Amino acid sequence: VGLQFEQKLADLNNRLLVMSGLAEQAIQRAVECYQTRDLSLCDLVDHGERAIDHMEREIDEMATDLLATQHPLAHDLRFTLAVIKTNGNLERMGNAAASISNHVRRLQTFPLVNLPVDIPRMTSLARGTMRNALRAFIEADGDRAQSVLSVDGGMDRLHKTTYHSLSSLIERQSEVIPQALNTMMIAGSLWRVAGHARNIAEDVIFWVRGADVINHLQHAGNRWTTRNHR
Amino acid sequence: VGLQFEQKLADLNNRLLVMSGLAEQAIQRAVECYQTRDLSLCDLVDHGERAIDHMEREIDEMATDLLATQHPLAHDLRFTLAVIKTNGNLERMGNAAASISNHVRRLQTFPLVNLPVDIPRMTSLARGTMRNALRAFIEADGDRAQSVLSVDGGMDRLHKTTYHSLSSLIERQSEVIPQALNTMMIAGSLWRVAGHARNIAEDVIFWVRGADVINHLQHAGNRWTTRNHR
Repeated sequence: VGLQFEQKLADLNNRLLVMSGLAEQAIQRAVECYQTRDLSLCDLVDHGERAIDHMEREIDEMATDLLATQHPLAHDLRFTLAVIKTNGNLERMGNAAASISNHVRRLQTFPLVNLPVDIPRMTSLARGTMRNALRAFIEADGDRAQSVLSVDGGMDRLHKTTYHSLSSLIERQSEVIPQALNTMMIAGSLWRVAGHARNIAEDVIFWVRGADVINHLQHAGNRWTTRNHR
Repeated sequence: VGLQFEQKLADLNNRLLVMSGLAEQAIQRAVECYQTRDLSLCDLVDHGERAIDHMEREIDEMATDLLATQHPLAHDLRFTLAVIKTNGNLERMGNAAASISNHVRRLQTFPLVNLPVDIPRMTSLARGTMRNALRAFIEADGDRAQSVLSVDGGMDRLHKTTYHSLSSLIERQSEVIPQALNTMMIAGSLWRVAGHARNIAEDVIFWVRGADVINHLQHAGNRWTTRNHR
């Protein structure tokens, strides 16, 4: 039974990593579609969204089965619940990718113009936050998860700047309004991806640090020991 | 122990209802703030968001404790997991309310203008979806949850129409651009609230119908018996 338990935990962990790979790929493809205007990439994102939805349910069922048959306790129980929470956040990243793909399709019907927006930079910030949060998950690293929450890396500021630059462009150049609006929505989706990644970092903290510490999250500068899972 | 178990399940259920009340109130206040431009309501929304975040953690901890000490099975296990999932969706509604309040604050710095947008109608659709999903939760009613998913009630269409009306207004009347943009963001938040409510309906289905049926959700027209919780 001990071995079966370890195996089920490992399976759950592995499946969540596959899910995170799908979410990351979806974001990457959606942004590549934006950059290249190769709409076949948008099709891939839309197909991928269905695969992500399917895997979300599969992981929820694996976690439910593990809880029902193995009754994990303490650290393992919190890990299993963190998987369910992270699973939901990854699915939302898939939605964000689909929303980007949707707006790229609309963009494609208008002439290509230069806009005061740095989508590659926003992408790199979103993916950086995502990668850090997932690495914190993989390594059960509460300190890294904490750093994802405390270091915003400029995403909020960049999102605000982008919103304002595009707004004022819209006021000056009416011929690029559809392009500017759709691009504003794409920037908003990337900003939300970073938000979902921050939620994953919170899931990691819920898991590795437990109840007592969660309530003191606001005390910045605190350092707690990191526990490794398995 | 049986009594303690029933009590803990009831406590968890009650706390989630309080949480859903907070989320509903947040949306209501944010929209009232939009309609009356009484910014003290926005302040209440912002304070409320912190209360919602706090309660989200509290509910997650109650559910974790219940799983750790009572080892619920089958229907009760799925209920407890559905609480954790729904809890996350309610917190996101709180975020949406805060985002609306944020955009109302920006709107307030510009002259009031008439815009081709029906925020009361979008609000009523969002709150209707929310109320149906929560009622499905309270009554463990899978049929009702299913109807939340299958009847979209026109929200998607209204959201698209609003986006297009405001876009074309922006092209024609540059003097109302900031108002139109902020209102577009508010409409987007209400649309997302309805999306979170639909996610709650999915949580109810996960709970009351279990694994086998989830995989056949796409077969529309199917009717399953409703199981009542307790």
